[in-house]
Amino acid sequence: MSIKPSSESLESVESALKEHLPPAVYDEVRRVLYGKPVAELPIAPSVAASAQSQAASFELKAYSMAALATKEQVRQPRLVRIGLIQHATPLPTDAPVLEQIEAIHAKIGQMVDTAAQLGVNIVCFQEAWTMPFAFCTREKDPWLQFSESAETGKTTQFCQSLAKRYNMVIVSPILERDEVHNDTIWNTAVVINSNGRVLGKHRKNHIPRVGDFNESTYYMEGNTGHPVFETAFGKIAINICYGRHHPLNWFMFAVNGAEIVFNPSATVGALSEPMWSIEARCAAIANSYYSCGINRVGTESFANEFTSGDGKPAHKDFGHFYGSSYVTAPDGTRTPGLSRVRDGLLVTEVDLNLCRQVKDKWGFPMTQRRDLYAESLAEAVRLDYKPQIIREKPE
Amino acid sequence: MSIKPSSESLESVESALKEHLPPAVYDEVRRVLYGKPVAELPIAPSVAASAQSQAASFELKAYSMAALATKEQVRQPRLVRIGLIQHATPLPTDAPVLEQIEAIHAKIGQMVDTAAQLGVNIVCFQEAWTMPFAFCTREKDPWLQFSESAETGKTTQFCQSLAKRYNMVIVSPILERDEVHNDTIWNTAVVINSNGRVLGKHRKNHIPRVGDFNESTYYMEGNTGHPVFETAFGKIAINICYGRHHPLNWFMFAVNGAEIVFNPSATVGALSEPMWSIEARCAAIANSYYSCGINRVGTESFANEFTSGDGKPAHKDFGHFYGSSYVTAPDGTRTPGLSRVRDGLLVTEVDLNLCRQVKDKWGFPMTQRRDLYAESLAEAVRLDYKPQIIREKPE
Repeated sequence: MSIKPSSESLESVESALKEHLPPAVYDEVRRVLYGKPVAELPIAPSVAASAQSQAASFELKAYSMAALATKEQVRQPRLVRIGLIQHATPLPTDAPVLEQIEAIHAKIGQMVDTAAQLGVNIVCFQEAWTMPFAFCTREKDPWLQFSESAETGKTTQFCQSLAKRYNMVIVSPILERDEVHNDTIWNTAVVINSNGRVLGKHRKNHIPRVGDFNESTYYMEGNTGHPVFETAFGKIAINICYGRHHPLNWFMFAVNGAEIVFNPSATVGALSEPMWSIEARCAAIANSYYSCGINRVGTESFANEFTSGDGKPAHKDFGHFYGSSYVTAPDGTRTPGLSRVRDGLLVTEVDLNLCRQVKDKWGFPMTQRRDLYAESLAEAVRLDYKPQIIREKPE
Repeated sequence: MSIKPSSESLESVESALKEHLPPAVYDEVRRVLYGKPVAELPIAPSVAASAQSQAASFELKAYSMAALATKEQVRQPRLVRIGLIQHATPLPTDAPVLEQIEAIHAKIGQMVDTAAQLGVNIVCFQEAWTMPFAFCTREKDPWLQFSESAETGKTTQFCQSLAKRYNMVIVSPILERDEVHNDTIWNTAVVINSNGRVLGKHRKNHIPRVGDFNESTYYMEGNTGHPVFETAFGKIAINICYGRHHPLNWFMFAVNGAEIVFNPSATVGALSEPMWSIEARCAAIANSYYSCGINRVGTESFANEFTSGDGKPAHKDFGHFYGSSYVTAPDGTRTPGLSRVRDGLLVTEVDLNLCRQVKDKWGFPMTQRRDLYAESLAEAVRLDYKPQIIREKPE
């Protein structure tokens, strides 16, 4: 078995705070760190049991942020339930490719079934969810065999059947092979509408060259702009993984009207964990939309060793994916995170009306001075741009 | 006495975690929430005593982040000590204007003296540091009497003498009256060089219209762009208060080469506290520089009551400024915050070399695709811009 049990001892920061802080201190620390209270959604015992009884049991958490929005006179509440799924790859990374994909499909199919029982309207999976995150190996084979057509691949077909069955929008981030255009490979999120049709796709805009990963070994910067997908359950967009480090990427999805932006990711503790709770949350605040961070979980081990460009010995895994998926509301309030060490489904009920309410309250779009920055940025990209630096003049 | 003692019971999140979490749990929670360990800087007993013995005693904390940077073969370390000062206004808000200014000068002069004893090279005060944050009142008088010339005002002269005495760069955010240009009023940070000369000034780029504050009652959006000030202790910039909600503001200071960006602020708990630890920190991460959040502390009460546009009764104070000033390194590591309830001086030693090291490691500027966003933003500000929205086509 190539999936090592995690050596991480902390289930989550939130569970540790709840366990150890005296109640009055906890309330105040929780408020400062996480914002307004978030209600737990009731989970029927039969549904809770289904999350435990399955071959691969998973953590199930459900919250409502609906009360963050106020009642309006001119619009009805627009309640939507968002599902985020984080999972470890169930088979060893050297199992046959098709078997790995099938095993993942089977596992996620069960989790989506639970999500449906909890009334989830939109579900998003983690980055490259049908495969190990093998881009550290720099091997093309067999990993490129996990790539599929965004429009007609097996994984898209699988999601289409789930979407139709459950009347659920599915965001499916995969390794895309575009056979129509010269077999180009992309890191792509496919959006499947709740009627089962492929609504469109978005390709990862920013590619890391950091630590174990230069993912441009496999695919290049996306060419799909910043699309927002209009679904029956709101306007959604996807900022894939490393794009979360780029505020302008988050920003353009807001410009195009996103109400929920998903950030399907694959990132490990030593590299990024202290940033994880900051970036997607800051994006929700700055852009007055809901943001959803989804990170895979577990440690993946590979058959052939690889190096990390850091002078250390070759190795077969590059660390622990810390999960910790969470949702932030446009007012900055966030849910607790899923476990750092287990598969999980996070269900969050939100009222999309809150986006406009927060814009009306804080006025960030209005005070953004986009004209100023359009000018500044146009200047800044010129090769002869002179940064605005103030130096002391000689007497 | 118009300064109410704070009703807030929590000294700081960090002190509560340290007090209540078991050591092993604390270490891991601290890592996830705050990043790499930050060393405490030794404080000589005589210096510590000076912070206690003064009429207005204040919290004194000192850390070193120098170890976050690695030794380079081609550059010597560039160690700089940053001082952040947060304070409550010492006199009632209805005391004579000149007495209030003098009392604040006296208090801050003592704190800067302590900073000097700890080797601080650059100090930054809070937003509009010489006055109560009276913009909630919508009264012009007497508050506009606190305004001064950035170049020749009493406060600038006061800072010049401190700067020269201590060989210290001082960032002095004041209410500016520009007598030369039609008595315009601005929210301005004056940068005084370590030789005592005024190096330049920056005017607040983004003005809030939120909660108790429409500050455009008093001053308009700044017209000084995004200047970076080249000092003997590094390239610094200032993102004043509400500008911290605007990622593009933070971004342009990075484009112009800032290594440290200060965010002098005045903000209260009910409005913004859960965002406070997110925004400046995210900016440090996204832009590979040090960011420094400084917030005033205490509750200020005014002679005449005012309303907040929220249907609630008129009142004389609008809540508790929660302090919590802190520094974030470009790798996302942050210091503990100063107290939520007391005056304080936070000294942080940093190695400016870390900025370039983090850019080299993470590559955010390189992978930013500025050309793409220059184009996108130019499009987005056109009145006829059509957002990129993907809708299902009719069959």
